[in-house]
Amino acid sequence: MDILVPPYRLARRVERLKPSTIREMLKVTQNPDVISFGGGLPAAELFPVADVSAAQDRVMRARGAAALQYSVTDGVPELRAWVANRLRRDGVAVHADDVIITNGSQQGLDLYARVFLDPGDVVALENPSYLGAIQAFDAFEPDYLAVASDAHGIVPEALETALGAADPKPKFLYLIPNYQNPTGNTLALERRAQVVAICARHGVPILEDDPYGEITFAREPWPPLLSHASQGAVTYLGTGSKMVAPGLRVAWMVVTDHALRERIVTAKQGADLHSSPYTQYVFHAYVEDGSRLDAHLDVVRATYRARRDAMTAALAAEMPAHVRWNVPDGGMFLWATVGAGIDTEVLFEHAVRDGVVFVPGRPFYPAKDRGDGMRLNFSAMPPERIAEGIARLGRAVRHLGG
Amino acid sequence: MDILVPPYRLARRVERLKPSTIREMLKVTQNPDVISFGGGLPAAELFPVADVSAAQDRVMRARGAAALQYSVTDGVPELRAWVANRLRRDGVAVHADDVIITNGSQQGLDLYARVFLDPGDVVALENPSYLGAIQAFDAFEPDYLAVASDAHGIVPEALETALGAADPKPKFLYLIPNYQNPTGNTLALERRAQVVAICARHGVPILEDDPYGEITFAREPWPPLLSHASQGAVTYLGTGSKMVAPGLRVAWMVVTDHALRERIVTAKQGADLHSSPYTQYVFHAYVEDGSRLDAHLDVVRATYRARRDAMTAALAAEMPAHVRWNVPDGGMFLWATVGAGIDTEVLFEHAVRDGVVFVPGRPFYPAKDRGDGMRLNFSAMPPERIAEGIARLGRAVRHLGG
Repeated sequence: MDILVPPYRLARRVERLKPSTIREMLKVTQNPDVISFGGGLPAAELFPVADVSAAQDRVMRARGAAALQYSVTDGVPELRAWVANRLRRDGVAVHADDVIITNGSQQGLDLYARVFLDPGDVVALENPSYLGAIQAFDAFEPDYLAVASDAHGIVPEALETALGAADPKPKFLYLIPNYQNPTGNTLALERRAQVVAICARHGVPILEDDPYGEITFAREPWPPLLSHASQGAVTYLGTGSKMVAPGLRVAWMVVTDHALRERIVTAKQGADLHSSPYTQYVFHAYVEDGSRLDAHLDVVRATYRARRDAMTAALAAEMPAHVRWNVPDGGMFLWATVGAGIDTEVLFEHAVRDGVVFVPGRPFYPAKDRGDGMRLNFSAMPPERIAEGIARLGRAVRHLGG
Repeated sequence: MDILVPPYRLARRVERLKPSTIREMLKVTQNPDVISFGGGLPAAELFPVADVSAAQDRVMRARGAAALQYSVTDGVPELRAWVANRLRRDGVAVHADDVIITNGSQQGLDLYARVFLDPGDVVALENPSYLGAIQAFDAFEPDYLAVASDAHGIVPEALETALGAADPKPKFLYLIPNYQNPTGNTLALERRAQVVAICARHGVPILEDDPYGEITFAREPWPPLLSHASQGAVTYLGTGSKMVAPGLRVAWMVVTDHALRERIVTAKQGADLHSSPYTQYVFHAYVEDGSRLDAHLDVVRATYRARRDAMTAALAAEMPAHVRWNVPDGGMFLWATVGAGIDTEVLFEHAVRDGVVFVPGRPFYPAKDRGDGMRLNFSAMPPERIAEGIARLGRAVRHLGG
């Protein structure tokens, strides 16, 4: 028999698919002596293991066969109703029939891109923006229009100018309004309706990605962009990954325009038929008791806030004056710029040797044109270890900064 | 604020994405008075609900945090090792590092198509072939080369001729060698090495989809095409959906060429980061006891065999002579041709009124050029109901057949 010799004749698009820098880095940092600010992991010790297990037991007693059988593509009705109820609490007019359950928000990004993007289309996004989203979009070969952002999120004047000048117009604007990944910045309340109005005027729909909106340290969550939008102008992505646990892979899209929703459901049919009804029912059986969920969220918020405080205190103690950082009032990340002409990809190489890692900022910029930033995760480890890690990082910075 | 009026400017490709005929039909048949041979559902009353629940309890006690945390894209190592071991039993040289865990085999179809297909590329497949695969491939806008199949699967001479004449060559050949969906036919043992050799000679890799291979009624499973292949020539899709339960969405790809595997893992990162470690661990904790799994499979096989017998007996009793069917020795489906010039899409309209449904054959043919067949599922209901459903179907056929 003849041998079929690779390389195969693969699709052109796969040449653009690069393994995620972050996930490749996670492999490197399996070494327990290395302190990693590089991941985006929720605190595993807070996972409600016993309560999820008890929820599973209730599901299997009450509806075991339904949990294990094939199911509908858009998601089990009980969970879709819960999602709609939770958003209605924030004053957003959402119905269960607007919701699609996905395998993590990453699948929501993929499905939305699938439905909107042809090669050469344009996606507008914040600068910097979330690497995982860029990776999802890259599979469909778009170009990017990076819009200036500041400490209060995307800049409305910059957005107006960019959309006005854009030819072709972007197919959509991708935004993380709350505790953005990677910067930790939040879109100011007064900018929200403005951003929605600018996009509507230019006929550009918005993909609002909100994984961290419930992880607030100092205030009630702000209403999502979805609450400012006319029908179909905003598609909203929410997830149970940071509220409860990422391992269940339970997330949701809210698509109030039903013609668009039908397209996305059809795309999901082709992609994986449907998400697991088993995990959907288990997640629902855990969250349906609102007081239990709220008590859990209070613990998560207090813990992450203490860890943020530990990180900012350590930064203040350990870093030379040319290093700057923000103090996010929620989420899992802060953003530091090192100054002194230091490239954080170079810093990374030194930091690994000192036993600490982070994510260098360059890959988060679609044009890869800024190398002075770094994303630091504060959710995944206790304060003492955060302090030790920042001390190591301080040594690496001072080594390079002279 | 201006209103953003749909329609959106969607991707060209979505115009080809049609909702699955089968899944749309499942919606219609929620009426419990309608007997449905149309789905492809395993028998829910056989699901090992208590054993899966007990497996979950063990997982949550032993490794709850790992089950609920983010995980690796290619799947948890224990489950990949189990997949490799099970295939090695059949004499296939597979290692845990060749395996990728997916959300059902449907995601395997999607990822493979993603990595191989540009618009206008050609996919070779059996005629007829599985609708869900055609739907997954359609998202990447291929053309199809349908190769003649008979009662013993794809015809080697027809494959040789088709691949020899094809310009451009197909990017891959898609096959379900065991108890094919929709026909229930199995690729003859003596054709297997032949098919692999023909494809290798023409430089066409094979995507082997094997959801039903373990659901045998009369013999041991035959070795997969994978066992005849040199490195990378065959990618194999297996699943827990029919062995245990589809609701867990645990399935696997075996990709022995590691450069190709890396491409597929990267595509999965973009699509959904990773599959649920929770369901992977639960599935593994259920199947790792081989004697428990074998006992369960014996019950599934005996039950489905009895249901197949009930269906073929009812067909013999109820159908006029112009209706023909096969007697598959495994799987979940048989294929009937009605003859007498009856189009099964017309028959479907009559059958619904008589309280029975099936899947008309036309959509399974890529060219939609044959309307005399129908797919009948025998796994989902007890013998008495099968007999009643076939009696109703017999009345509809006689009504049309004169």
